[in-house]
Amino acid sequence: MIAGQARSALVLSAHSGDFVWRAGGAIALAVEKGYAVKVVCLSFGERGESQGLWKQPGMDMGTVKKVRREEAEAAAQALGAEIAFLDLGDYPLEVGPEAFATIVDHIRETQPEVLLTHVSNDPYNRDHNLAHETLLRARMVAQAQGNKTAHPPIGAPQVLMFEPHQSEMCGFVPNLLLDITSVFDRKRKAMECMSAQSHLIEYYSDLAVRRAVQAVRNGGARSITHAEAHQRLFPIVGEELL
Amino acid sequence: MIAGQARSALVLSAHSGDFVWRAGGAIALAVEKGYAVKVVCLSFGERGESQGLWKQPGMDMGTVKKVRREEAEAAAQALGAEIAFLDLGDYPLEVGPEAFATIVDHIRETQPEVLLTHVSNDPYNRDHNLAHETLLRARMVAQAQGNKTAHPPIGAPQVLMFEPHQSEMCGFVPNLLLDITSVFDRKRKAMECMSAQSHLIEYYSDLAVRRAVQAVRNGGARSITHAEAHQRLFPIVGEELL
Amino acid sequence: MIAGQARSALVLSAHSGDFVWRAGGAIALAVEKGYAVKVVCLSFGERGESQGLWKQPGMDMGTVKKVRREEAEAAAQALGAEIAFLDLGDYPLEVGPEAFATIVDHIRETQPEVLLTHVSNDPYNRDHNLAHETLLRARMVAQAQGNKTAHPPIGAPQVLMFEPHQSEMCGFVPNLLLDITSVFDRKRKAMECMSAQSHLIEYYSDLAVRRAVQAVRNGGARSITHAEAHQRLFPIVGEELL
Amino acid sequence: MIAGQARSALVLSAHSGDFVWRAGGAIALAVEKGYAVKVVCLSFGERGESQGLWKQPGMDMGTVKKVRREEAEAAAQALGAEIAFLDLGDYPLEVGPEAFATIVDHIRETQPEVLLTHVSNDPYNRDHNLAHETLLRARMVAQAQGNKTAHPPIGAPQVLMFEPHQSEMCGFVPNLLLDITSVFDRKRKAMECMSAQSHLIEYYSDLAVRRAVQAVRNGGARSITHAEAHQRLFPIVGEELL
Amino acid sequence: MIAGQARSALVLSAHSGDFVWRAGGAIALAVEKGYAVKVVCLSFGERGESQGLWKQPGMDMGTVKKVRREEAEAAAQALGAEIAFLDLGDYPLEVGPEAFATIVDHIRETQPEVLLTHVSNDPYNRDHNLAHETLLRARMVAQAQGNKTAHPPIGAPQVLMFEPHQSEMCGFVPNLLLDITSVFDRKRKAMECMSAQSHLIEYYSDLAVRRAVQAVRNGGARSITHAEAHQRLFPIVGEELL
Amino acid sequence: MIAGQARSALVLSAHSGDFVWRAGGAIALAVEKGYAVKVVCLSFGERGESQGLWKQPGMDMGTVKKVRREEAEAAAQALGAEIAFLDLGDYPLEVGPEAFATIVDHIRETQPEVLLTHVSNDPYNRDHNLAHETLLRARMVAQAQGNKTAHPPIGAPQVLMFEPHQSEMCGFVPNLLLDITSVFDRKRKAMECMSAQSHLIEYYSDLAVRRAVQAVRNGGARSITHAEAHQRLFPIVGEELL
Repeated sequence: MIAGQARSALVLSAHSGDFVWRAGGAIALAVEKGYAVKVVCLSFGERGESQGLWKQPGMDMGTVKKVRREEAEAAAQALGAEIAFLDLGDYPLEVGPEAFATIVDHIRETQPEVLLTHVSNDPYNRDHNLAHETLLRARMVAQAQGNKTAHPPIGAPQVLMFEPHQSEMCGFVPNLLLDITSVFDRKRKAMECMSAQSHLIEYYSDLAVRRAVQAVRNGGARSITHAEAHQRLFPIVGEELL
Repeated sequence: MIAGQARSALVLSAHSGDFVWRAGGAIALAVEKGYAVKVVCLSFGERGESQGLWKQPGMDMGTVKKVRREEAEAAAQALGAEIAFLDLGDYPLEVGPEAFATIVDHIRETQPEVLLTHVSNDPYNRDHNLAHETLLRARMVAQAQGNKTAHPPIGAPQVLMFEPHQSEMCGFVPNLLLDITSVFDRKRKAMECMSAQSHLIEYYSDLAVRRAVQAVRNGGARSITHAEAHQRLFPIVGEELL
Repeated sequence: MIAGQARSALVLSAHSGDFVWRAGGAIALAVEKGYAVKVVCLSFGERGESQGLWKQPGMDMGTVKKVRREEAEAAAQALGAEIAFLDLGDYPLEVGPEAFATIVDHIRETQPEVLLTHVSNDPYNRDHNLAHETLLRARMVAQAQGNKTAHPPIGAPQVLMFEPHQSEMCGFVPNLLLDITSVFDRKRKAMECMSAQSHLIEYYSDLAVRRAVQAVRNGGARSITHAEAHQRLFPIVGEELL
Repeated sequence: MIAGQARSALVLSAHSGDFVWRAGGAIALAVEKGYAVKVVCLSFGERGESQGLWKQPGMDMGTVKKVRREEAEAAAQALGAEIAFLDLGDYPLEVGPEAFATIVDHIRETQPEVLLTHVSNDPYNRDHNLAHETLLRARMVAQAQGNKTAHPPIGAPQVLMFEPHQSEMCGFVPNLLLDITSVFDRKRKAMECMSAQSHLIEYYSDLAVRRAVQAVRNGGARSITHAEAHQRLFPIVGEELL
Repeated sequence: MIAGQARSALVLSAHSGDFVWRAGGAIALAVEKGYAVKVVCLSFGERGESQGLWKQPGMDMGTVKKVRREEAEAAAQALGAEIAFLDLGDYPLEVGPEAFATIVDHIRETQPEVLLTHVSNDPYNRDHNLAHETLLRARMVAQAQGNKTAHPPIGAPQVLMFEPHQSEMCGFVPNLLLDITSVFDRKRKAMECMSAQSHLIEYYSDLAVRRAVQAVRNGGARSITHAEAHQRLFPIVGEELL
Repeated sequence: MIAGQARSALVLSAHSGDFVWRAGGAIALAVEKGYAVKVVCLSFGERGESQGLWKQPGMDMGTVKKVRREEAEAAAQALGAEIAFLDLGDYPLEVGPEAFATIVDHIRETQPEVLLTHVSNDPYNRDHNLAHETLLRARMVAQAQGNKTAHPPIGAPQVLMFEPHQSEMCGFVPNLLLDITSVFDRKRKAMECMSAQSHLIEYYSDLAVRRAVQAVRNGGARSITHAEAHQRLFPIVGEELL
C-alpha cells in the first residue's frame, strides 16, 4: 500500500519502454480504479531498445539514458504512475545482490495487491526472463517473516504477466483480457512519449483492437474497442464463478 | 437465463454423482448469489459408480437407477439447483444425435453465463472426457445463428472445469479457488445424500479443507475454511487486475 | 499431382470461409509458384458462420448455402484455386464413411505435396478439430497400398495448420511465417468476396501486417509487408539449415 | 488371470505386426517370468502395413489377411503368447459396439495385471490412437461393478504404451527401459516371422541396441545389450524408491 | 554407499523442514529396507519458514537457526537418517562454488542409488528450484571421471522429486505412490518435531490419507492407509513390466 | 559473414566433442554449400567426457586437454570448419562476463545466418543447458545497436538445436531431418578423430541410419541413407509452403 491509498500495484519492467507497450492499459486502468501504481525499470533499454536514438549522429550512452529516462517519466505520468529507475544495464541485464535488495524494498514499501512483469521464457529476449525470475524471487523474499527490513513483509499478491512481442513463441496463454477502452487514450499518449521506438505505436494500437475483438468473442460487452492481454500466474481466490 | 432470474448456470455431469463431489460448492455458491442453476446428468453412473448398491443382494439395474436418481434429486435440492436426467448409459457413456440436441436445448433454454463440466482428458474415466467434449460441441451449436430451435442462440459463456479425482493425472491446473466456506454445510448435506458412494464424503470434505489452505496461501482471507478448485477454460474479460 | 501440373496442394476447410481468412495467402502464393491448389470445403458454415445472412429478413437455409457457395467460388477464383463442396453440415460438422471416402479420393486424385487444414484443438470450434482429425486420417488411408481405389496411393505430404482465430488458446505455435506480400492483393480480393463475414476483412488484413512485422523480426527481408502464420506438423526433410 | 497361471498381461495391437516390433521384448520377458500373455489384434494391417505382400502379382485381400494371420500366429508362438484376431479393418480401423464388448470380454477373461498398447497421439497413424483410446475405454468398462458379463470385473491394471515409430513426434517419453537381453533371441525370431515388413527387422534390432546403451546410462547393468522403451501411463504403487 | 551398508540414498532439502513434510515417508521406508539415508539441508529455512518462531518476542536469527537445527536433527533421528547442514541462507538461498563442491562431496561419499529433492519449477518458492538445479548439476559433476576428489565418481542414480505444496502449480505429476503405511508413525513423529511449522502436521497427515486412497485406486493393496507421492525424473531400468 | 564468403554459420559446443557427434553432418553440409562454419568450444569436456583418456595410467589434466584439443581440431578440419576453444571448464561449465563478451565477439565477427547449439533442458547434462542459454543471451547482445564493439550488430539468425543423447528426456522434437547422405563420409571421418569417446562412433552412425529411415517416411527421397535430426527454434520466414 502506498501511503494514503487503499490499493497498489507494482510493475517490474526489464527496459524502460516495456511497461508502456505491454502494460500501459493495465496501469491506467488500475490508476483509474484508485490504485497507486509504481513502475520499477531495471534498465533504460539503452543498448538494445533505443535504435531510433543510436541512428542519430554523435549519440552517446549518457544521452541515450537521459532521453530514455525522460520519455519513460513522461509516459508514467501520462498513465498516472510513479516510476523508479535502477539503471542495471541491458543486453544483458544483470541483477546483483544489492539491486535485488532494492527491488525487495520497493515491493515491501508498495505492499502491492498485484505485481506485473514479463513472461518466464522469451527466446528472443533473455532480459525479459531475468525480470520474471527476479520478480518471483523478490516476491518470495519480501514475504519472509524473518527478513527484517524497513518495511513489513507482504502477503501473497497475484502476478500478471503481460503480453510479449511474439506471444506464441513465449508460451503466453492469455487468461485475462483487460477492457482498456476507457483508458486507451492515456495508453496512446504514453506510447507517444516513446520517440526511440515510435514504430511500435501503430503496432500496439492495432494489437489493442485485435484483443478487443477477442474480448467480445469471449463474452465481453460489444462496446469494448481496446483490450490488453495478460496471464495470471496464480489461481484467483474468490466467490465468483465468472 | 431461467425465467424470473437474472443469471444462470448449467452443469453437465457425466454421472449423477459427479456434480455433487466436484462442483457442489460452486453450485451452492451460485445459488446463494442469485443464479438459477440447472444440472444435466448424462447418466446415473449406474454401472460404474454404484458399487455400494451392487453389493446389496438381489440388486437390479432398475433399482440402481431409481436410487441414484432419488439421491441426485435430493442432492440437487440441498444445493438449490434444478436437475434433469438424460439416462444415456455409463461405462461407456454414449451421446447420440438426439441426446446431443436435447443438451443444446437445455443450454439455450438456460442461457447460462457459465457452464461447468469435467476436464478434457481423464485417463481413468473416458466418460468424463466425453462429457467435456459434448459440452464444448453443444456450446458451439447453441451459439449458431442459423440453428433454429425453440430457444434463441446463446452468447459466449465461460466454461469451468471442476476438479477430477486425481488432478495431476488429468492435466488439471486450478486457476480459481472458490471460497465455499459460507455454503459448505449445503455441500456436506448434498454429499450425505449419496449413499452409493458414501466413502467419498470424508475424502471430499478433507479436500475442501486442503484447497482452503491453498486459497489462503494464494492471498485469500484467513477466514476461508473450505474451498473448491476449478479451472476456467476461456480468458476472463473485465476491468479488474485481480 | 493435378494433370499437367508439376506440383499440387490440397486445403481441407471446415467451413467455406476458413480457407480464405486463414490460408488465402498460402494458396495464392502456391498458385503463383505453379502449384495446382484444390480447396475442399466440408460445409458452407451455413449455420454457424453466416450471421450476416441470417440477419436479413426471410432468409432460409437454401439461400444461405447458395450465397456461401457463390462467395467461396468467387474467393477461390480470386486465389487461383479449384474448389469442391461436400455439404456435410456445420455446427456440428459430421463426417460419415462415405464423405470420408470422398475426401480420400480428393487427396489421391490431387497427389498433393502439401495439405493445409485447421489446428487439432480449438476450444471455441470443434468443427475445426474434426477437420484436422479427418485430414490426418484421410492422409493415412490415402497412403495405404492395400486400399484400392481409382487413384494410386500418395506419398507422405507435409501438413500445414493455418492460424486459428485465437492462436494461443489453440496451442498454435507458428513455425512458418509465409511472406505473402506479392499476393496480398489477391487475398484481399478473395476476402472481399465473403459478404457474410465482411467484419473480418480488416481484422485479417491487420493480422497480415502484424505477422509481417514478426517475419522481419525473425530475419525476413524488410520489404515484407504482409505475412501469414502457419505451423508445419511434420519435420522438413532437406539439405538446407535455414 | 488365465486359468492355472498366477499373473497375466494383455496386449492390444492395432495391426497384427505392431505387437512384434514394439512390444515383442516385453511379451517374451513377461512369459519368461510366468505371465500368461494374450495378444489381441484389432486388424491384420492388411491394407496399410502389408506393402511387401501387395507388391506380389495377383495378390488379393483374402490372401493378405491369411498370410498376415499366419505370420502373427508364428510370431506370438515364438514369444510364448496366445493371440486373437478381431478383423476390424485397418486404415481406417473402426471399433463398433460389438467389437468393443469383445475387447472388454478379453480383458475380463484375462484379468491382466498390465495392459500394453499404443500411444495416444501418433500423427502418422490414427489407428494407433484409436487402439489407445479403445484400451482406456475398455479398461474402464471392464472395471464397472454393474456391468454384468461372463467374467468378473477387473481391478486397476497398469497400462504400458510401447514405443511408436517416431517417438518424439508422438509425445512419447519413456519411463521404463526394459532389459530384454535375456529374451532378445525370441524377439528376433518373432520379427523374422513378419515377411511382409522384413525391412523393419534390422531397424528394430538396432533400436534395441540403442535403447540398451541408454539403459546403461540410466544406471542399468553393463551387461544389458538389448532394451525396449515403454511409457507407463499410471503411477506405480509400491514400497521401492528405485 | 555408506560404510557397512549395502544401499544408500541422499536427500537435498532447500530448507530444514522440507525433507520431513515431503519425503519423511520415503526416508523412513528406505531406512526400513536397509538403506543408509543422508539428508543435506541447504538452509535452516530461518527467514522464510520459521514464522512460528519469529512470532515469539525477542527472537533473533541465531536462536531461530539453533531451534530449526535441533528440530531437524530430532526429525532425522526419528526417521533413521543422518543429517548435515550447509547453512547457505534462505529467501533467497544461494549456492556458491564452495558449497557446491561440498554437495558434490556428500554425494560421492554417499554413493547413493537414489537422490531426492524438489521439483524444478515452483512459482511460489524459487529456493526449491535452486535446490533442484543444484542437485542435477552436482549429480553430473559427481559422475565426472576427470573430477578428482577424495571419493570416487558415482554411477547414474535415480532422482525422485517429492511433492510440492501446490502440486498442480508446479507441474508435478506423480509416477510413484509410495506405500508408507508401515512407517507412517515415524513420519508423524518426525513431523511433530517441527514446532515452528506445527500447523502443517494435520495438513500432511491428511495428504498421506488422500494419496493412499489414490494408491488403492491405482491398483495398490486395500491395506494401504498412508502414501506419499513422488515423481521419478529418469526412466527405470529393469525386467519388470509393473 | 566471414571475409570472402557469402554465408556463414556458428556452432556453440559445450564440450569439444559435442559438435562432432550431434552436428557433424550439418556442419559438413553447410561447408559443402559454401558456408564458412566456425565452431566455438566452451570447454574440452576434459573432466566429464574423456573417460577413455582418464583410464590411461598417469594421465593428467594438461594432457587430457591437449589430446581433446587436437582431436577436435582434426575433426573440425575433416568437416571443413574453423574452430576456437574458450577453455572455460566443464562439469560444471561456467561462463563469466569476459567469456561471454568473447562469445558475442565471435558471433558478431562471423555474422552467421544460423547458429547451432544444444537443447534448453537436458536433465543429464546441465552444461548443455548453459550453452543453450548462453547462445540465446549472446545472440541478443550481439543484436543490440547500442552495444559498440569491434564488429557490427547482427541480424536475426535462426537457431538450430542439435539432437541430445536421449532425445525424449530433453523435450527434443525434431522439425528438420537433414539429409547428410552426401557428406556422411566426412562426419564419419570426424567421429573417428575422437579417440576419447570412440564407443560413440557406431552409436551415432546407427542413429544416422535411423534418422534416414524417418526422413524417407517424412517424404524424403528414397536415396537418403543418413540423416541428422535438428530442431529449429524460431519460425522460418519464406515463400515456400514445403
